[in-house]
Amino acid sequence: MSTSKTINAYAVSEAGGQFEPFSYQAGELLPNEVEIDVINCGICHSDLSMVDNEWGISQYPLVAGHEIIGKITAKGDNVQNLQQGMTVGLGWHSGYCGHCHSCKTGDQNLCQTAQGTIVAHHGGFADKVRADAASVIEIPEGVELSSAGPLLCGGITVFNPLVQFDVKSTDKVAVIGIGGLGHIALQFLNAWGCEVTAFTSSESKRQEAISLGAHNTLNSRDESEIEAAASSFDFIISTVNVKLDWNLYVNTLKPRGRLHFVGATLEPLDLGVFPLIMGQRSISGSPVGSPATIESMLEFAKLHQIKPQVETYPMSKINDAFDHLKSGKAKYRIVLSNE
Amino acid sequence: MSTSKTINAYAVSEAGGQFEPFSYQAGELLPNEVEIDVINCGICHSDLSMVDNEWGISQYPLVAGHEIIGKITAKGDNVQNLQQGMTVGLGWHSGYCGHCHSCKTGDQNLCQTAQGTIVAHHGGFADKVRADAASVIEIPEGVELSSAGPLLCGGITVFNPLVQFDVKSTDKVAVIGIGGLGHIALQFLNAWGCEVTAFTSSESKRQEAISLGAHNTLNSRDESEIEAAASSFDFIISTVNVKLDWNLYVNTLKPRGRLHFVGATLEPLDLGVFPLIMGQRSISGSPVGSPATIESMLEFAKLHQIKPQVETYPMSKINDAFDHLKSGKAKYRIVLSNE
Repeated sequence: MSTSKTINAYAVSEAGGQFEPFSYQAGELLPNEVEIDVINCGICHSDLSMVDNEWGISQYPLVAGHEIIGKITAKGDNVQNLQQGMTVGLGWHSGYCGHCHSCKTGDQNLCQTAQGTIVAHHGGFADKVRADAASVIEIPEGVELSSAGPLLCGGITVFNPLVQFDVKSTDKVAVIGIGGLGHIALQFLNAWGCEVTAFTSSESKRQEAISLGAHNTLNSRDESEIEAAASSFDFIISTVNVKLDWNLYVNTLKPRGRLHFVGATLEPLDLGVFPLIMGQRSISGSPVGSPATIESMLEFAKLHQIKPQVETYPMSKINDAFDHLKSGKAKYRIVLSNE
Repeated sequence: MSTSKTINAYAVSEAGGQFEPFSYQAGELLPNEVEIDVINCGICHSDLSMVDNEWGISQYPLVAGHEIIGKITAKGDNVQNLQQGMTVGLGWHSGYCGHCHSCKTGDQNLCQTAQGTIVAHHGGFADKVRADAASVIEIPEGVELSSAGPLLCGGITVFNPLVQFDVKSTDKVAVIGIGGLGHIALQFLNAWGCEVTAFTSSESKRQEAISLGAHNTLNSRDESEIEAAASSFDFIISTVNVKLDWNLYVNTLKPRGRLHFVGATLEPLDLGVFPLIMGQRSISGSPVGSPATIESMLEFAKLHQIKPQVETYPMSKINDAFDHLKSGKAKYRIVLSNE
């Protein structure tokens, strides 16, 4: 077992700051940990939220980055599921308590004391990263590594609800927001067998949504178009973080339909109760996914050749990459590469 | 087949009016209909809402009453599932379209064109009532008829979610509001095997809640008591129609927990999205239940001797009974009896 105790990373030193080269001493590898040579790491919108301390949980210097693809270079004495040289992924979580009810029932992603990869822990905008082996997933051969990083957070965030809420192949589904998350959701839902509708706010994205797997599109800025879609959908997944007229969208749900949030709007939902009662409808949310669900997603993505669309920057151009993210023009995810 | 074409009922002639004797000609019995001699009929809060035209769908003269127990006195030529002399129940719905997706999949209660028993149709505050045979349920022998009426609407409203959302016997559940609906919910949930908590606003109801099946109680007016119950419940059913601090209650849900509404608050829910996302929690609502679920409920109620607690008035004292309902002091449901 050889571990590199000095890890070279990029960190911001205060809320809203720029990334600067930053080295830290990682110490002895713990028995349950692995060390990963970072091949590349996607940028997720939540990296920006953490850089800006939007949620009040950031600690500086902050090494963000939690859509990591890499190779295992060292493993602790107790690690049995992973081997040196294995190509792996690491997402939002870099460890779980392992003994709460959620962990015991396979819902590690709901563990209330799970370790966040970039919360009081140094993440993947670096040459190496460490994590509890329980959170590290082998990448199946045949998955394109240059675009796989965003599957580890953005991808699993939209894939997991299909598993959790038992979305049927015969369901009519819709995606609100065709961006970093939504463009992956369209691909998954199309491969799932569903009839897929994309709600998009821009005319230019209509054709892109179709090419990504949508069978239909609706203009999210045209209230009458949405009203005309009453009782159409079994499942809607919202990936946006802005406030919309949610009651209008609830109205597009069939009886038993579900409006599911993976995008976190800060404003409350203002939902009428009657439309929920009369149609036995549900509203829900979910975060990322468990290790087992990430494995299922990777197999499904491989089988159906589902790939995030990425723009790649060298890791050293991290500040340019974040500027591009902030511009809202990224199509659709950005990956920082060490190669 | 003998049908009584004149039906003697009690009706209100305008929103908020008093009930007065009212007779109407029922005409020929349709081939799919049955005529029921009303033994007794419960009063539901939605009867009052309809009397007051709170939902804007009332038609006058209005014969309310949709928790009906009676005996079949006549049946149409096409009716095969029911016989003359059979003891039956009739609830919120007195007919279904029979051919929509919801009807075809056993969700007749979600049929968007279902016939309401008291919506453009004369209900059970009468000597007789008619209904489509598909909505009429045989009452199993052994069910106490004097208290069974409220099961047909109040009872099924709280029983149905346990079936729809697959509440487990090992679940920790809570009931908000121990009144007409809540006092039946406590009994069902106790018999279901769950650990049951009652949220009550009055100290005097604590002991009653325990006697109805609650294992624990929490004071719904004590914010700190509710905060201390964070992550406690798999399923909460809210039966109240007032606005509470719903985010406080969402916080008492475990991961994967559900806050379910059967009481219709008119004010929007104001829900934060983050607690839904982080805990994969759901918010939902549902109306009454399907004929098959009503049958299951009646069998379950019979097995476990679950009975609404009722106060009985003669049908002729209907206005006194409504005054008692409005006083909020009914314990817990009122039944009008023709006997």
